[in-house]
Amino acid sequence: MYSAREKGLEHILDFSANINPLGLPRQVQLAAERSVRDCVHYPDPLCRALAEKIARHEQVKQEWIICGNGAADVLFRLVYALRPRRALLLSPTFSEYEQALRAVGCRAAGWLLKEADGFRLTEDVLQRLDPALDMLILCNPNNPTGVLIDPLLLQKVLKACAEKHIFLVVDECFNDFLQKPACHTVKPWLVENTGLFILKAFTKFYGMAGLRLGYGLCSCQPLLEAIRQAGQPWSVSVPAQAAGAAVMTPELEEYRERTKRLILQERLYLAEALRRVGLRVFDGQANYLFFKAEGLEGLEVQLEQQGILIRGCGNYRGLTKEFYRVAVRTHEENVQLTAALQKILK
Amino acid sequence: MYSAREKGLEHILDFSANINPLGLPRQVQLAAERSVRDCVHYPDPLCRALAEKIARHEQVKQEWIICGNGAADVLFRLVYALRPRRALLLSPTFSEYEQALRAVGCRAAGWLLKEADGFRLTEDVLQRLDPALDMLILCNPNNPTGVLIDPLLLQKVLKACAEKHIFLVVDECFNDFLQKPACHTVKPWLVENTGLFILKAFTKFYGMAGLRLGYGLCSCQPLLEAIRQAGQPWSVSVPAQAAGAAVMTPELEEYRERTKRLILQERLYLAEALRRVGLRVFDGQANYLFFKAEGLEGLEVQLEQQGILIRGCGNYRGLTKEFYRVAVRTHEENVQLTAALQKILK
Repeated sequence: MYSAREKGLEHILDFSANINPLGLPRQVQLAAERSVRDCVHYPDPLCRALAEKIARHEQVKQEWIICGNGAADVLFRLVYALRPRRALLLSPTFSEYEQALRAVGCRAAGWLLKEADGFRLTEDVLQRLDPALDMLILCNPNNPTGVLIDPLLLQKVLKACAEKHIFLVVDECFNDFLQKPACHTVKPWLVENTGLFILKAFTKFYGMAGLRLGYGLCSCQPLLEAIRQAGQPWSVSVPAQAAGAAVMTPELEEYRERTKRLILQERLYLAEALRRVGLRVFDGQANYLFFKAEGLEGLEVQLEQQGILIRGCGNYRGLTKEFYRVAVRTHEENVQLTAALQKILK
Repeated sequence: MYSAREKGLEHILDFSANINPLGLPRQVQLAAERSVRDCVHYPDPLCRALAEKIARHEQVKQEWIICGNGAADVLFRLVYALRPRRALLLSPTFSEYEQALRAVGCRAAGWLLKEADGFRLTEDVLQRLDPALDMLILCNPNNPTGVLIDPLLLQKVLKACAEKHIFLVVDECFNDFLQKPACHTVKPWLVENTGLFILKAFTKFYGMAGLRLGYGLCSCQPLLEAIRQAGQPWSVSVPAQAAGAAVMTPELEEYRERTKRLILQERLYLAEALRRVGLRVFDGQANYLFFKAEGLEGLEVQLEQQGILIRGCGNYRGLTKEFYRVAVRTHEENVQLTAALQKILK
C-alpha cells in the first residue's frame, strides 16, 4: 500500500490512506517539533510518561500497555513472542496480519466474509473455532470493509476463544472513529481474559502515520514481557512519545469530537453520493468506505490520471478487482471524488 | 542500560551513553523539525531518498542498504530472517546481540577476551570457527572496551567464515569515530562476500539516539528482502528519514572533522588523566574509554551521588564490577569527571 507521496505525486487528492482529514493537531505537531532537541538522548524504553497518559485515556491499568513503533511493530512482536502455528484471519482483512504470521512460519487460514452477507462476520465462524487453532485475529471495524462485528457475536467469539485456548487479537485501530466506540471495544474483557490482546494506533485518528506510534492492551504480564524481549528496547522514538503524550490530553477532546462529527456527516454524504453514481457501497462505520463497481476494474488507474488516489482492493484475499476503498475526507474533497467518479462512470 | 534522563535526573553529567558531545547538528535538528508537518503521511517503506544519500556517503551500491529503526532494529530483523541456531559472540560485548539471538532460541557462546591480552581478539579465535557455527558477531571497535580488531586478523576471520559458511556480522557503529575508519571497515569485502553484514547507526556519531535510525550493508539481495519481510514495512519514521538525509551531506563534513579532532584530543587527555588517578585504562580507540579500578566496586554509585553517570560494566559477561566505561566528552566535562574520580580515589 503506497501513499501518494511514495508515488512521487505532490498535488493529489489522497483517498487511499485512511487518515483523519483534519490532519495532525497543531499542539501535537508542536510537541513533536519541540522534542527533536531532546533526541540526543535515547528514548525511554518503557515509554512511562506516555503509558501513564494512555492508561488514563483508555481507562486501563498502566501495566497493561505496551507501546511500539506503530501498531504493526506491536503486531510483529506479539507474533514473534507467541509463535502461533495455526491462525485464523478474516478474509478480506488488513494484509499485515498474514505477513507477520508468515514471518514465524504460521499457517494462516482465511475465514471468507461473503459479499452476500455484506462482508459481515456471521455466527457460523463459531464452528470454525477449534482447539487446534492457536490464534484468531479480528479487525473491528474491519479493514478494508469498515464493517463492524455484531457485539453479541463478538462476545460469543471471545467466550469460545477463551474456552478453547485460542489467543484472540482484536485490532481496534479504527474504533475511535466510531460513533459509539464503547459499544464495540473488547476492553471490558481484558481484566478476566489473559488470552486477549487489543491493538491500537495513533496513526489514523491523529494524522501521525509518519511518526510511528501504536500500542497494545493486554492483562497478561508475562506475555507483555515476552513482547518487549522480542525486539529492541528503544522502539518508540522521542518525537513519537512526545506526540503521543500530547494527544492523550483533555485539550484534544474538541479535536476528537470535531473529527467524529466530520466523519459521520461526510461518510453519510459520500456513501449516498457513491450510490447515486451507481456503486454498491457496503455498510462501513469507520473513516473509509468500501464499494463494488460491478464489472469495472481499474477504476483506481483512471482516477489516478485525474490526480486522485483510491485503494483498488483486487490484491486482498477474497476480493476481485471490482472492489475499492476510499477514505472519508473533507466535504470539498469528497465532492471532487464523486464528480470524478461520475465522469468516469456515466 | 538507562540514560540519565531515564533515571529522572536533569542536571547531570552523562558519561554513560557514548554519544557525540557536540550533539545533534543544527541542520539535522531543523530537518527533523521541519519534517514533522509531513508526518500525516506514512514514511517511505524503502527509505529511498535516504538510502541514495547513504550509498553516496558510504560509497556502496544503494541496493545493498537496509534502513531500520536504529541499528538494534536491523539486528533483530537480521536474526529473525536468518534464525541461526549456534552463534559465537565476543565476551564482553554489546548485550543486544545476545538478546536478539535469544529471541530466536539461538545458542550463543561467548569468546572470552582476556584482560591479560588487553581485551584484544587473538589468533586462537580462528580455531573456534568451526562449520557447526551459523553466525559470528563482531563489534569493531568493541563495546564496551573500545578495542579494535587487528586488521590482518580480521581478514583471516573473514576468510575462515566464508570458507566455513559462518555468517559474519560486523557492528561498525563506532567506526566513524576512528582516526582511520577506512583501515578498519570490512566494506571492501561486501562485494565478494554475500555472507557478510555490516551494522551502522546514526545514533552515536550524530547525537540522534532519540530519533532512531540505523542501517545495514550487505550484498545478498534475497537476505535483504527476508529482513524486510521480518518486520513491518514502515519501521523508519519520517523525522528519522529526514534527519538521516540531512546528515549524509557534504555540509556535515566540517562537523565530522570537528568531532574526530575533539574525540582524539580528549580521549588522549582523559586516558592520561584516568591513569594518573590510578585507573587501568585499556587501549580504546572510540569515543569512550574502558578502565579497571583494581579492587574497587560501585564507583558508578559514588559518582552518581555527585551527579555524574558512568557505566558500571559488572553486568557484562566476562567482566567483574571493577570495570567501567566512560564516554569521551568535552574538555570541561572530562576535567570534572577526573576531579570527581580523584576525590573518590585518593
